[in-house]
Amino acid sequence: MADDRVAQGPGGLAINPARLAADLEAINAIGRIEGLDGINRISFSDADMAGRRWLLGRLEDAGLEARMDPVGNVFGRWRIGAGPAVLAGSHLDTVPCGGPYDGTLGVLAALEAVRAMKEAGIAPVRPVEVVCTADEEGRFGGMLGSQAICGEVGADWIAGAIDDTGVRLADAMRAQGLDPARPEPRDPADIAVFLELHIEQGPVLENAAEKIGIATAISGVFNWTVTLTGEANHSGTTPMALRRDAFRGLADFGAAIPEILDRAGAEETRLTVGKVALAPNFPHSIAGEAVFSIIGRDPDEGVMRALAGACRSEIGRAAAAHGLSVAIAEQSWLPPTALDRDVADRLVRISERLRLPPRRMTSGAGHDAQTFARHVPAGLVFVPSIGGISHAPNEFTPWNELLGGATLLAHAIAAFAAQ
Amino acid sequence: MADDRVAQGPGGLAINPARLAADLEAINAIGRIEGLDGINRISFSDADMAGRRWLLGRLEDAGLEARMDPVGNVFGRWRIGAGPAVLAGSHLDTVPCGGPYDGTLGVLAALEAVRAMKEAGIAPVRPVEVVCTADEEGRFGGMLGSQAICGEVGADWIAGAIDDTGVRLADAMRAQGLDPARPEPRDPADIAVFLELHIEQGPVLENAAEKIGIATAISGVFNWTVTLTGEANHSGTTPMALRRDAFRGLADFGAAIPEILDRAGAEETRLTVGKVALAPNFPHSIAGEAVFSIIGRDPDEGVMRALAGACRSEIGRAAAAHGLSVAIAEQSWLPPTALDRDVADRLVRISERLRLPPRRMTSGAGHDAQTFARHVPAGLVFVPSIGGISHAPNEFTPWNELLGGATLLAHAIAAFAAQ
Repeated sequence: MADDRVAQGPGGLAINPARLAADLEAINAIGRIEGLDGINRISFSDADMAGRRWLLGRLEDAGLEARMDPVGNVFGRWRIGAGPAVLAGSHLDTVPCGGPYDGTLGVLAALEAVRAMKEAGIAPVRPVEVVCTADEEGRFGGMLGSQAICGEVGADWIAGAIDDTGVRLADAMRAQGLDPARPEPRDPADIAVFLELHIEQGPVLENAAEKIGIATAISGVFNWTVTLTGEANHSGTTPMALRRDAFRGLADFGAAIPEILDRAGAEETRLTVGKVALAPNFPHSIAGEAVFSIIGRDPDEGVMRALAGACRSEIGRAAAAHGLSVAIAEQSWLPPTALDRDVADRLVRISERLRLPPRRMTSGAGHDAQTFARHVPAGLVFVPSIGGISHAPNEFTPWNELLGGATLLAHAIAAFAAQ
Repeated sequence: MADDRVAQGPGGLAINPARLAADLEAINAIGRIEGLDGINRISFSDADMAGRRWLLGRLEDAGLEARMDPVGNVFGRWRIGAGPAVLAGSHLDTVPCGGPYDGTLGVLAALEAVRAMKEAGIAPVRPVEVVCTADEEGRFGGMLGSQAICGEVGADWIAGAIDDTGVRLADAMRAQGLDPARPEPRDPADIAVFLELHIEQGPVLENAAEKIGIATAISGVFNWTVTLTGEANHSGTTPMALRRDAFRGLADFGAAIPEILDRAGAEETRLTVGKVALAPNFPHSIAGEAVFSIIGRDPDEGVMRALAGACRSEIGRAAAAHGLSVAIAEQSWLPPTALDRDVADRLVRISERLRLPPRRMTSGAGHDAQTFARHVPAGLVFVPSIGGISHAPNEFTPWNELLGGATLLAHAIAAFAAQ
């Protein structure tokens, strides 16, 4: 079996921890900004582009054919064997004040895997390609890089995309010498599999004292903006029974979240009210309006639908109890993405063989693997995030657990490229 | 009995509706601002001062001794009889985009009452004074005018007061030719009673189809800022059971308001969460912090204490349920103010005699009468606020109900000045 051949390959297959550590240190020296914490390689910023150029150099050093496509995706191709390639990687762009491993780990671990395979004398039967996608963090609203690779977005979408501050994507790209008119989709028939290593960004592995997660699906998500409208009035002169208090409606809905989950949720359901705006939002005034977000997630779209129905029903009940009118705007409804079962099973077997007993789990966050999974077989491996923290300077994964993930990725790339 | 003498006084005592209407129209022509709704006579603005100067002229026209004191209070004294004076009035300053009657009605009805008494040939046995206080709306945080008259604030307080935008009270006063160093407290021994007519600012009279309210007390109020601190985290990757969601704590507290009122409240208790700020306040992030206001009111300080205790207990329960820490900052604790029982009883009798059956009620909002009541007998009369609306351009009281209140005030001033 292919996996066995790799594990027992000539000279063994072992990544070089010092080299991986040096790469992580080098990339994360790019994007340090005086007065800001953490890593700042915001998509299409000078730091982001400097990181991508640094990667091009490292890919060339590793003997790969390195290039940047017109939207900023970086590829390093090991031109060997024949047939569809094994792609592995993630992204180097960060949120503002981001952490050192989100995306970055997956890119550098893929690079290290290729170097380790070469050192071990492994000769794959198909090409291997290290991938670093552009704007995974969604500064411009999508996952531009992986969606451009997969042909999901083209020049028209790029022409219309604008960030939160009003900057046009096309302008941001042109300012960095990229070409918004010429995304280069890849032919899915040329891709055997896409493999991604990422930090979990949640506390599940840490809490279970497990070191490796193999994603089986990525949750779907709906994003609602709910407006409850009552009547703003004086907090002292308006008797409790004569109020139409929009805050009270919001609170009743919030307090009903356990009932909603009991009735409609499943094990991996998530329901979050993260953003609230009252009006007039003055201590002495009864709230005449409450606008709030609801984010619902589940790996099963049927559960998502039941969850949405239960939310609608509880919002209606809370509104009726307080004489409020309701408007629900569905900002988005993204169905769940199942990841390829054969790929996941094979990742599980490789992980077990490396004595890294894995946990099969759902990804609650979106990743490049999700985009690829709509077009080619894709696999997604997690390492623990201490405290579940991500998108923050204190994002952290212990070094041994980073190495475990990188080792698994290297053996997986070798295995998928060996047949 | 004094009341009878007045009701049957020479020529009868009747206000002149056309004259009162003309005064209301004239004062509310001052403070109209292009592009802003409603009335804008913000304390110490040019419009506020223009309104006060207009009043000085009307007081002189009525044969009163008119003056403005160093903090902007306007007085019109009918120098007649002897002994402590009957003071009647309210304020002319407004909130931004305020309504036409809040404060204004009480000042102009007092002026009209004096004119009507003179026309009716009533000769009081003691002086009568029309009062228009400065900054009742609290731009600088207190009820400056009535508190200065009553000696509660002096030059030191004035020197330290600043509005929400950073303007110093002393500067605002000096810019209008007033003297922040020289407030002029009045001797309480020279004041027989303070009478105030005001719109209710609540829906109680309208809902009961009653036309006159006689306040027996002004509710005490506590103002808390509560901070619940949990952990901000990713809404997709953090399982429900591992969250420390500050919004959920806030919602549980809000949903417990009925239980709190059942346990600790009384008929006139009010409990309001009017201001909420989540952090990071982003739809995809679990709230790590919820900061919110609690305003509790009751006319009985014992009920206020029970209410505060029940709030503390429910906040503690909600915080414990979601792993949150709690900080409660008490911004203020103002005890209830009882209004003089003899004055209220007499107002009730006069009102009944005028075929305006009154409702004894608590004032949930603060008024100048509250300041005076701490030093001299004080009475407070309400007319209905349609929809309970105040501090807004659509504040409204039907004309007949305004006239009813003004007639009652005239008869009350005459009665209190007749003995």
